[in-house]
Amino acid sequence: MSSSFQRYLSEFVGTAFLLATVVGSGIMAESLSGGNVAMALLGNTLATAGILVVLITMLGPVSGAHFNPAVTFIFMIKKEITLQDGAVYFLCQCFGGMLGVVVAHLMFDLEVFQASTKLRSGNAQWFSEWVATFGLLLTILATIKVKKESVAMSVGLYIAAAYWFTASTSFANPAVTIARSFSDTFSGIFPAHAPAFIIAQLFGALAALLVFNVLFSKSSESQ
Amino acid sequence: MSSSFQRYLSEFVGTAFLLATVVGSGIMAESLSGGNVAMALLGNTLATAGILVVLITMLGPVSGAHFNPAVTFIFMIKKEITLQDGAVYFLCQCFGGMLGVVVAHLMFDLEVFQASTKLRSGNAQWFSEWVATFGLLLTILATIKVKKESVAMSVGLYIAAAYWFTASTSFANPAVTIARSFSDTFSGIFPAHAPAFIIAQLFGALAALLVFNVLFSKSSESQ
Amino acid sequence: MSSSFQRYLSEFVGTAFLLATVVGSGIMAESLSGGNVAMALLGNTLATAGILVVLITMLGPVSGAHFNPAVTFIFMIKKEITLQDGAVYFLCQCFGGMLGVVVAHLMFDLEVFQASTKLRSGNAQWFSEWVATFGLLLTILATIKVKKESVAMSVGLYIAAAYWFTASTSFANPAVTIARSFSDTFSGIFPAHAPAFIIAQLFGALAALLVFNVLFSKSSESQ
Amino acid sequence: MSSSFQRYLSEFVGTAFLLATVVGSGIMAESLSGGNVAMALLGNTLATAGILVVLITMLGPVSGAHFNPAVTFIFMIKKEITLQDGAVYFLCQCFGGMLGVVVAHLMFDLEVFQASTKLRSGNAQWFSEWVATFGLLLTILATIKVKKESVAMSVGLYIAAAYWFTASTSFANPAVTIARSFSDTFSGIFPAHAPAFIIAQLFGALAALLVFNVLFSKSSESQ
Repeated sequence: MSSSFQRYLSEFVGTAFLLATVVGSGIMAESLSGGNVAMALLGNTLATAGILVVLITMLGPVSGAHFNPAVTFIFMIKKEITLQDGAVYFLCQCFGGMLGVVVAHLMFDLEVFQASTKLRSGNAQWFSEWVATFGLLLTILATIKVKKESVAMSVGLYIAAAYWFTASTSFANPAVTIARSFSDTFSGIFPAHAPAFIIAQLFGALAALLVFNVLFSKSSESQ
Repeated sequence: MSSSFQRYLSEFVGTAFLLATVVGSGIMAESLSGGNVAMALLGNTLATAGILVVLITMLGPVSGAHFNPAVTFIFMIKKEITLQDGAVYFLCQCFGGMLGVVVAHLMFDLEVFQASTKLRSGNAQWFSEWVATFGLLLTILATIKVKKESVAMSVGLYIAAAYWFTASTSFANPAVTIARSFSDTFSGIFPAHAPAFIIAQLFGALAALLVFNVLFSKSSESQ
Repeated sequence: MSSSFQRYLSEFVGTAFLLATVVGSGIMAESLSGGNVAMALLGNTLATAGILVVLITMLGPVSGAHFNPAVTFIFMIKKEITLQDGAVYFLCQCFGGMLGVVVAHLMFDLEVFQASTKLRSGNAQWFSEWVATFGLLLTILATIKVKKESVAMSVGLYIAAAYWFTASTSFANPAVTIARSFSDTFSGIFPAHAPAFIIAQLFGALAALLVFNVLFSKSSESQ
Repeated sequence: MSSSFQRYLSEFVGTAFLLATVVGSGIMAESLSGGNVAMALLGNTLATAGILVVLITMLGPVSGAHFNPAVTFIFMIKKEITLQDGAVYFLCQCFGGMLGVVVAHLMFDLEVFQASTKLRSGNAQWFSEWVATFGLLLTILATIKVKKESVAMSVGLYIAAAYWFTASTSFANPAVTIARSFSDTFSGIFPAHAPAFIIAQLFGALAALLVFNVLFSKSSESQ
């Protein structure tokens, strides 16, 4: 068993690395791809999916490797984490995410503190976030249930797919959304557009919990 | 054991997610790639293969994760699923697939109901579908037999390969074929060309069952 | 235990699928990539690596999943397969490979029988084949020894890497070399250049066996 | 147990293959991509990540599969390898790496001995190397601790990600840095810029050991 401090540090370090990767690889991919946006998204996808598998594998046993307030929120509803613990997780994820953005900017010699000007709004974008987070949480909940050792790989592959099948490139994570609003680069989001993304994400997560419960509840017929 | 309703829901949700991914990533990849079709197919491949691994891993224990009437058809012949159950699976796959197409269109702010105008016909295309489905079913049957825990990964990798080695980009799935006829985007198929694809797929699946039986039957020599 | 006939059929079907993939994905990738050779090689790599993992996973338990006379040759030296069995394996691999090429041509509506005009010759190419096959056989021998369940994944990843790190794009397989001489497409090789490739491959395989024996022999010191 | 000679040979062969791959795939990818640097980096990434998984899987049981003096350095501090053994590892890694560069040059018919002219310097580059090596060592230490059988896959995926999320494309390895200074190709580094990279790498490795110790120490609270 890890101590509380270790678990909080794990969420902080993990979310920092996740954001350094998302933002850093976005900067790198965009700068190298010379305007070929598909190529840029491909580099961004590869790096994000890869680091997710790595981070969840190594930090899962410490803190559960949430790195995502939507995940923490659902585990709070499932009473697998206390309200107080969940609140600290949320803070660690947000500050970790912001540190990750700062690290990415420093690595690429950019202004440390930025505000994104990338517009991401409208029904299609919000519905995309709802779908993206619905799928992410269903993947996490169901895979923990049926094949726990595959969760890291499944989350990585899910996000790789969701970067491409959603119109919003799948943020699916409130801490990621907040942190990305602080980067005026490939992966940024205009700060005023972040709250609607987060609301869509939380509703997507709740819907996933509902569908999970129906799919995996013990039914009388099956006994 | 899952209840019948849970198994049907699993086929419905899984096929919906599969189609949302196939169609959504096709739209995204085509729009970002600026006419570079190889790049578009690459994004489409990555997303489809990734989501297949995820879906089969998490829903396999619920419904077997067919998401494909050709698979259900072969398991009916092998008497591993009843006729009645197979018929409901088929309906769930078809309606799930169509829901997935609608979801993809909504995420990308496109007309919800469409009919594809993409021509996919001729001997080479039909032979491609025969080969694609032959390989898919042989992969599924043989991998279940020798290393069941690898089925999800093998199906994902097989489809990734088949998107590139067949001239038809490997539909290999009647429900996917029907659903894709409702999308006039990258991954669509002109509705009148769908039936020949489906017939080729079913014959490919039957041939796979035959070869599987020869390869894996217990022979007198081997005892 | 599989019967002899099943093992031969496994080598035949597996090598056929491997070549259909190598040649088919080469045709597809080149035709879609509009002259971007790196993109074409990427599609070719993805498909080849993917199908290798799939085929070795499912047919390994039947025939050992050689699909490669250089592999069979080394196992004959190691006396893990008889001379007679090895000779039949060799024939199955060659004819399977040629069937695969024919299947690829049919899927893409090309002339069924072709002779390649693609020149691949010279010291650098031959050294590349020596290195490629050395690495492939070392990977196979060492991974069978230390983590047998990873052989399929390791071979797929090795070939993916070798497509890029060798100047010859890593044929590393005499049956593949012969079969590819029958296709005047992306992955072809001018028939008169095939024998030198095959000789380099066999010497690379022998060198791998030597290094493997040194690396993994039980030494007196280690007891 | 492997003998000392076998362990040294393993580090030599493994680092040679790693460098042949890094440098060879860089040459191939750059030459095929026609100035599309993102495409070139993608080929380079794919090959490097793939070969890392292969090499660590097969040589891990022989020598621990360091292939990296920064890794050996940390294990010396942790007293898991003796000073003398570590010194020989270091030499094997350096000479293996240089052999790998020579092999790559021979495969591509280039001048065998070269000195790179590629400038890689400045705070952002150094900080990138610090971050890259910090992440690599944290990945190795933590994954060995919690899921040893995933180390090969995690290192491959980590480096794939780090090629994209760092501004330096993540050398993260002093032997690789030295060897790459001998190649005036895509992956080279101007020799006079190598020492600062190596210093940044060693400090990154030390920081990872520190964070690892905090994250995974047995705390009184958790007992």
